[in-house]
Amino acid sequence: MKVTLKDGSVKEYNEAKAIIDIATDISEGLGRVACAAELNGEVVDLRTVISQDAELNILTFNDEAGKRAYRHTASHIMAQAVKRLYPSVKLAIGPAIDTGFYYDFETESALKDDQLKAIEAEMKKIIKEKQDIERFELPRNEAITLMEEKGEIYKVELINELPEDAIISFYKQGEFVDLCAGPHLMNTKAVQAYALLSTAGAYWRGDERNKMLSRIYGTAFSRKSDLKDYLNQLAEAKKRDHNKLGRELGIFTTSDIVGQGLPLVMPKGAKILQILQRYVEDIEENWGYEFTKTPMMAKSDLFKISGHWDHYKDGMFILGDEEKEEEIYALRPMTCPFQYVIYKATQHSYRDLPVRLSETSTLFRNESSGEMHGLIRLRQFTLSDAHIICTPNQVEQEFTSVVELLQEIMRALGIEDDVWYRFSKWDAERTDKYIDNPEAWESTQDSMRDILNNIGLDYYEADGEAAFYGPKLDVQFRNVHGKEDTLLTIQIDFALAERFDMSYVDKDNIKKRPFIIHRSSIGCYERTLAMLIEKYAGAFPLWMAPTQVKLLPISEKNHDYAQKIAKKLRSMGVRVDIDMRAEKIGYKIREARLERLPYLAIIGQEEEENTCVSVRSREKGDEGSIDLEAFAKRLVEENATKYIYHQHMIKEEDE
Amino acid sequence: MKVTLKDGSVKEYNEAKAIIDIATDISEGLGRVACAAELNGEVVDLRTVISQDAELNILTFNDEAGKRAYRHTASHIMAQAVKRLYPSVKLAIGPAIDTGFYYDFETESALKDDQLKAIEAEMKKIIKEKQDIERFELPRNEAITLMEEKGEIYKVELINELPEDAIISFYKQGEFVDLCAGPHLMNTKAVQAYALLSTAGAYWRGDERNKMLSRIYGTAFSRKSDLKDYLNQLAEAKKRDHNKLGRELGIFTTSDIVGQGLPLVMPKGAKILQILQRYVEDIEENWGYEFTKTPMMAKSDLFKISGHWDHYKDGMFILGDEEKEEEIYALRPMTCPFQYVIYKATQHSYRDLPVRLSETSTLFRNESSGEMHGLIRLRQFTLSDAHIICTPNQVEQEFTSVVELLQEIMRALGIEDDVWYRFSKWDAERTDKYIDNPEAWESTQDSMRDILNNIGLDYYEADGEAAFYGPKLDVQFRNVHGKEDTLLTIQIDFALAERFDMSYVDKDNIKKRPFIIHRSSIGCYERTLAMLIEKYAGAFPLWMAPTQVKLLPISEKNHDYAQKIAKKLRSMGVRVDIDMRAEKIGYKIREARLERLPYLAIIGQEEEENTCVSVRSREKGDEGSIDLEAFAKRLVEENATKYIYHQHMIKEEDE
Repeated sequence: MKVTLKDGSVKEYNEAKAIIDIATDISEGLGRVACAAELNGEVVDLRTVISQDAELNILTFNDEAGKRAYRHTASHIMAQAVKRLYPSVKLAIGPAIDTGFYYDFETESALKDDQLKAIEAEMKKIIKEKQDIERFELPRNEAITLMEEKGEIYKVELINELPEDAIISFYKQGEFVDLCAGPHLMNTKAVQAYALLSTAGAYWRGDERNKMLSRIYGTAFSRKSDLKDYLNQLAEAKKRDHNKLGRELGIFTTSDIVGQGLPLVMPKGAKILQILQRYVEDIEENWGYEFTKTPMMAKSDLFKISGHWDHYKDGMFILGDEEKEEEIYALRPMTCPFQYVIYKATQHSYRDLPVRLSETSTLFRNESSGEMHGLIRLRQFTLSDAHIICTPNQVEQEFTSVVELLQEIMRALGIEDDVWYRFSKWDAERTDKYIDNPEAWESTQDSMRDILNNIGLDYYEADGEAAFYGPKLDVQFRNVHGKEDTLLTIQIDFALAERFDMSYVDKDNIKKRPFIIHRSSIGCYERTLAMLIEKYAGAFPLWMAPTQVKLLPISEKNHDYAQKIAKKLRSMGVRVDIDMRAEKIGYKIREARLERLPYLAIIGQEEEENTCVSVRSREKGDEGSIDLEAFAKRLVEENATKYIYHQHMIKEEDE
Repeated sequence: MKVTLKDGSVKEYNEAKAIIDIATDISEGLGRVACAAELNGEVVDLRTVISQDAELNILTFNDEAGKRAYRHTASHIMAQAVKRLYPSVKLAIGPAIDTGFYYDFETESALKDDQLKAIEAEMKKIIKEKQDIERFELPRNEAITLMEEKGEIYKVELINELPEDAIISFYKQGEFVDLCAGPHLMNTKAVQAYALLSTAGAYWRGDERNKMLSRIYGTAFSRKSDLKDYLNQLAEAKKRDHNKLGRELGIFTTSDIVGQGLPLVMPKGAKILQILQRYVEDIEENWGYEFTKTPMMAKSDLFKISGHWDHYKDGMFILGDEEKEEEIYALRPMTCPFQYVIYKATQHSYRDLPVRLSETSTLFRNESSGEMHGLIRLRQFTLSDAHIICTPNQVEQEFTSVVELLQEIMRALGIEDDVWYRFSKWDAERTDKYIDNPEAWESTQDSMRDILNNIGLDYYEADGEAAFYGPKLDVQFRNVHGKEDTLLTIQIDFALAERFDMSYVDKDNIKKRPFIIHRSSIGCYERTLAMLIEKYAGAFPLWMAPTQVKLLPISEKNHDYAQKIAKKLRSMGVRVDIDMRAEKIGYKIREARLERLPYLAIIGQEEEENTCVSVRSREKGDEGSIDLEAFAKRLVEENATKYIYHQHMIKEEDE
């Protein structure tokens, strides 16, 4: 038989051969580092025996699928160690994931981080024992019997759900047996660099009606140095975690008596939010938006028309008892229906369109407690929310402008390279989750794809991620822990104008239905703030820094001059703090540097005499003495820099 | 007997005499215009017979009590007319009030405004009939029998509640008899200038558990010309009523499906709110405030500590069912407890105090539907709210600064002469409504009075108007209909720092309780907006006008130039609209003037050639041609004018 390798070379064998042997045959080294293989385009075990002509690609840790096999094996080793230490534990599932692996266990009491050291030690033993990993298959009834004998009730449940013709395979290493499709490495000794990272609670099948299991997260690498790098990177990420750093910097706090998902934003954080909000409202006004201020609650009547009552009620806070009271109110989960009421308050002709209504809008979602996290998953949040009501032939131009606007804002925030685009479509199998109008879905999705292609946006498509009333473009980002999340969305809505009976009088004097684009431009302010904390690790760009300059008078004699400088700078719009404590200047500088402010200005006798300040900048370090006027001018200019794009745009239009 | 008149002159009579006869004796004219009299300091009927030496002051319509007697008689005439037209009607009560009189009737169906003309006509007849008005008294049982015979159940209820020794008097004119303490005029013919104004629903005794009655409001004057003036004034007020004008100007709208007390603020209104909010936040920052952004809901735990759960729960929106759920959340009715949690998130030394935490804070109050009105009584509103946490010896300075700040803001809004001050104290009889600590109440009220006197504020005292946690200074105003309301308050709080266990470390290293000042600076934004709409009748001062200049191009040829001007002005921070409709310039000007904008700028060929605009200003009318640069400069300067006081303050500190 002929085995064609990836580089096009061909190996010939007279007899059937396991892939691991072919790998070793190619080179001893490859045999050692092989993790899995691609056989005629399919990822398989190294144990797989080839008996016919085939195309073969040996996968190592450097290949995605090889890495998964390696880490999946590490996951089994961890499960084996846990079973040795806690024999009563029941196995649920334990896959490889992007960042490593996890395994979920049913335990008598929740596993805690302080148990991880012991489990790691047991893993070390298992690896030292150099156990061969074997694969075997069983008929369904024998497979169930085997798992039942071991008390593995979750595995029994999984087997019962496999299709009738499924091959039911197990992997065994020493005393440990696991239901598993593989592939896996050949021996436990192959796993050399690994670490257990954290424990967490996780519901069986992710459903909160099921039992809470104990999850252990770990990771594994083929080289110790790579693991070390990764762990350093994780430690750095932990330092940047907005939920830790945001508290340390005094940006926000939380309180048990206030409740989960309800952060209290402290002065520094509130200043950043105010700066961002003013910036966004100003720039949106320049892009032709008008603002509204609509109530945060309404009668159920409104949400029944909008469809939220049917499609979104579980996520809403209801005021009062539906059975007892005549009028039921609810907190709003979205702004749309309120802006539609505003639109409908006046008659519209085609000449008025597009109408672009924006609002810095506070919304409420009744999230379950387990989902709350820092400034990311909240019960209350504030969105830069807008609805563009336009004629059908304005949709493309308006959609394009929305993308341009949000890109301008991403540039100002410095995150244009940190985000990517997802085109989120409905799931035709889940008509209960969506407004049931397949034709409208397909045609709207087709036009949206055309628009995205015309803009030349780099995006990927995802099914089942649409809003209940239409498809959307999501701007995605990743937090420091690598978790992907949505920063903001643009949606095309083909349903709600009809439901709300919105119209405009067209040129031909006939009432017509407008199209609606739902969009945000900076997303939810709290989430964006979280992202900025992690992006800049607290060293915010000057224009959004709550304090831009800290004045450090050397002694009490310089306090008057420092206060004069502060007043001068403040009157020019610069945000200034003064440290007037009776501390040594060295101590003041050391402490101030920890705050990662854009500028420190040291003020002593010499500076006072020469009307200057000694500047230490975050970017350039000690800049020596700078004339006060020049320093002030520089600050004002730097502060205005974020508007570069915006001013550019105005100029272009002027020409 | 000797009757001493008000001017000191003395009349001597040999026999007992009715006051009306003494009045006529003084002069025929006085006899005609007399309404009531003050006899030995007590207001009495003109029918009262004097038989002993007495001091007497004859009251006419120009005296407050005289006016009341006059209008009270008009009220009886109206009731008589209603009984004639609708015999089944039952009488409730019908007093004179500041602006005229009303009478409440139980009717089969609610009385409507379109029935008032017929009632007025019947009143005219009754006046023409020149019926003598007579007074008589009855013992209780006879009084009850009389009223029962007439089916006047409300009067029976009133008689039953009179003290045992009360004199039960009736007034009778023709067929009409009413239970009444008087005083009244002598004959229906005396009432000559009157008008019925409106109908309304009113609960018997103002209690919504009772039956809804029909109320008719009317007024009466001694001269036809005074009535005419008053009706003109009312018509003007109606035009200014924010609930009417605010809708006409497109400032806000309401919607049945959204609910009562939840106005939707439209773009023009939202622009004014944004301008006011930025102004207030900037000025507060200059006065040393820091900002917070805290959640609008919290667990009941928080409100139990603050005392809101005990003292304010009826006014709060509760989320979820107390009996079923473990965690109960509520929408916040006040900001205080949230800012206390922020204060407590860090340790404080006496050096950090005062801490001034401010928030543009949205609050929720579960008002009953009957109390809702335009932008005044709302279920949701946004307050400029702050809490100053300070040492005991900082209270006076901080309180004084708060008064100065709010006076500065009132000046910028142009309403400094429209407000007055009320010192609101607790009611020692209603300890259930207040935190029960009489000593603390008395001592805090005493210090507050001292502070008010030291500031030299002109104020009056009111019992039973305090917050549940402390006394307050209220800034009062009157709406166009003459109703007094509170614009904003400053409160001294002696209770909540204790309840929240707030502290600071003093110089002596001992933990101490701070004092707290609760305050607003502009009040609730919606209510302030309502007041400004009524004050300026839509002609807002330039700095707060949503549109400052409207450009009116004469023909399509001038559109490009108009757009260039718009861009130039916008880049300088001026709010500009353009009317590019294909309408004649005369029509455009007439329409634009109705909007009462600060400036109109007409743009034609000549203006384009000379780089100028033809200006019509709201203040000065047609100003002719003005150079574009000069006009732009003038707008920018005028826009900055509101900051005059503020800049003045900064300068003073600088010197």
